[in-house]
Amino acid sequence: MKTRGISILGSTGSIGRNTLRVVESLGDEFLVVALGAGRNVELLAEQCARYQPELVSVGTEECAELLRVELKRIDAAPPRVTIGEAGLVEVATHEGAGCVVSAAVGAVGLVPTLRAVEAGRRVALANKESLVIAGELMTRAAERSGAEILPVDSEHNALHQCLRGERREEVRRLVLTASGGPFRTGTREEMERASVEEAMRHPTWQMGAKITIDSATLMNKGLEVIEAQWLFGFGADEIEIVVHPESVVHSMIELIDGSVIAQLGATDMRHAIQYALTYPERRTSALAPLDLARLGALHFEPPDPERFPCIALAYRAMRAGGTAPAALNAANETAVAAFLDRRIRLTDIPRVIARVLDAHAARGVTDLDTVIAADAEARQHAGEVIAELSSAKEPARSLPKATHAD
Amino acid sequence: MKTRGISILGSTGSIGRNTLRVVESLGDEFLVVALGAGRNVELLAEQCARYQPELVSVGTEECAELLRVELKRIDAAPPRVTIGEAGLVEVATHEGAGCVVSAAVGAVGLVPTLRAVEAGRRVALANKESLVIAGELMTRAAERSGAEILPVDSEHNALHQCLRGERREEVRRLVLTASGGPFRTGTREEMERASVEEAMRHPTWQMGAKITIDSATLMNKGLEVIEAQWLFGFGADEIEIVVHPESVVHSMIELIDGSVIAQLGATDMRHAIQYALTYPERRTSALAPLDLARLGALHFEPPDPERFPCIALAYRAMRAGGTAPAALNAANETAVAAFLDRRIRLTDIPRVIARVLDAHAARGVTDLDTVIAADAEARQHAGEVIAELSSAKEPARSLPKATHAD
Repeated sequence: MKTRGISILGSTGSIGRNTLRVVESLGDEFLVVALGAGRNVELLAEQCARYQPELVSVGTEECAELLRVELKRIDAAPPRVTIGEAGLVEVATHEGAGCVVSAAVGAVGLVPTLRAVEAGRRVALANKESLVIAGELMTRAAERSGAEILPVDSEHNALHQCLRGERREEVRRLVLTASGGPFRTGTREEMERASVEEAMRHPTWQMGAKITIDSATLMNKGLEVIEAQWLFGFGADEIEIVVHPESVVHSMIELIDGSVIAQLGATDMRHAIQYALTYPERRTSALAPLDLARLGALHFEPPDPERFPCIALAYRAMRAGGTAPAALNAANETAVAAFLDRRIRLTDIPRVIARVLDAHAARGVTDLDTVIAADAEARQHAGEVIAELSSAKEPARSLPKATHAD
Repeated sequence: MKTRGISILGSTGSIGRNTLRVVESLGDEFLVVALGAGRNVELLAEQCARYQPELVSVGTEECAELLRVELKRIDAAPPRVTIGEAGLVEVATHEGAGCVVSAAVGAVGLVPTLRAVEAGRRVALANKESLVIAGELMTRAAERSGAEILPVDSEHNALHQCLRGERREEVRRLVLTASGGPFRTGTREEMERASVEEAMRHPTWQMGAKITIDSATLMNKGLEVIEAQWLFGFGADEIEIVVHPESVVHSMIELIDGSVIAQLGATDMRHAIQYALTYPERRTSALAPLDLARLGALHFEPPDPERFPCIALAYRAMRAGGTAPAALNAANETAVAAFLDRRIRLTDIPRVIARVLDAHAARGVTDLDTVIAADAEARQHAGEVIAELSSAKEPARSLPKATHAD
């Protein structure tokens, strides 16, 4: 077996750390050649000591300095250190890396991921924002360079597995499953009052803060619908969402003859990561297999459009096309950050997005600049809406605070 | 689209009738060239009038005569009429039929199915007995002739669909789902007392009498495990059974990386029949698609070896190999017939099979004669055990009778 070089964008995040565990479990198959991180210099230094990449990138010059100090402290050989977006692009296009795991969170992953695709790398994609924002550019670049985009999201990874033996024209629709998040059985009022801590209590998956809030509003599923559009070439009317609280069925496809193919598995991201790395082959995994008889029951229900308006907003942006999904994503990122800062309510997130979409005139996506301009514009508008909403609420002092009582 | 000729063994049974509905729904794609039936002459005559096959076969000369009379009565053009096993073989090897649907019930389907395989036909196989009895001969014949065997059983059809995009060496195990039958939640005592009517009340599938009783004892699942061995090349330790009362997940495969691929669908045999006819292509079906959100929940539990000893008997015969599965099948067919005749109890069925297997010295399967001899021997022994059990019970007059009270 030939050893393959691998780069990881976002190595200190949840997907990044799990990728390194998968790489270790696969023995000599992969060699870590480059790591990109943001500000978690301490963990990055540990990763450098353990995996000895040739190249790393961090967010700022200050982080780079801290990394050098930390590497000296733990007596680790220093790799070449780069910074900022240019640094991430270097990591993403390192010539020793045939495979790039794109797991930086949010829009910061966009340019490096696009460069990896343009360079013809296999891209194991966890950064769904890059497809949501610039799916058209990404898809076109992959067609030109021959890059394979393998999704690491459990849902899209499941769809990729379900679609393996099938022809596109014989697939009627994709069905994305959603856990329903912590407010699946909650009321509209409970969601209005929800604290950051309550919104962070995801029932089945352990993930980062941004994606966990997206799971609470179901915007995560909305973004995934847009992602699925670009990954697999299906339209808004061909992609559905079903709520499945156990998160065991990771997603499904329905064929034109009525047959449904589903992929099931344990809720451990390492399954999807390993699949994306080793595809088209599969490797033996020591992770515990699924035991359906022990689980007992799997439940399914339609998503509630009243309590989860983010889904309809995502479909709306998808149908509008062009820069609309980029505006949706930018507004959502800005609003989620404001919620995590306790400046707005959880239920303000869709309000912010709706206002931004109302004002956004979608333009065709011809180049990255168009997308970046739409992103910046939407962020600014979202910021204004957030300022308005949070100042309107200030006098009442009713914003939910952290609490130990549940 | 080129019209393809099709023959049906067992055209008046449940699978046969559904096959004809599928053929009709597919327009000009298939042309019915030959039909084989047993004694249901009236329905066969109707089928002749509607589909105008060139050739039909019936059980006996008497049936042939009745068929001619019936055809005249309804003013239908008479096809060529053949009788008995030789007649079924003619139907199975009709040169105008590229595809043969093997749906005769029980061991009677064995020789005609084998001849169709030897003749290199696509065989859409619903007659599981032919693989259970003579899987080795059938598999070898298919290798030689290049015949494709496409399973019509919903479980094996599901496995075939799940395996489409996968490599054999990357599949860890097959998981067959079982509805659990009418006694899934019953007690051992209720099974001892069960009437034929109670045993015939299958919760999810409408099927013939023999297979419905097999579903009540779970022998159906045991036979399917043996069938799966031959269809897909998996051993006894690589095939498992999970009880799934809704029968929505038709079966699953587990890959070496821990991923599970499942096929789901409505409980309508026409899905599997159509798949077997049109494979590797799929055709649009007007049947209602699966609606998981409406179903709400799917349940899974391990099968209970105490109440369903037929499963262990099937694994035992499979591990013994050679003629043991033929003996198992013969003993089961004989015992099921005796139960339907109200000569023995439902729970006597596994007792009869165990006694026959205890006495059976498994021989290697080199030719059809060996299999047929083992079948005959097991039937005779089963008959003796049944006579013993039923005479022992005669004085008590405790055998369950048909009843309108439930």
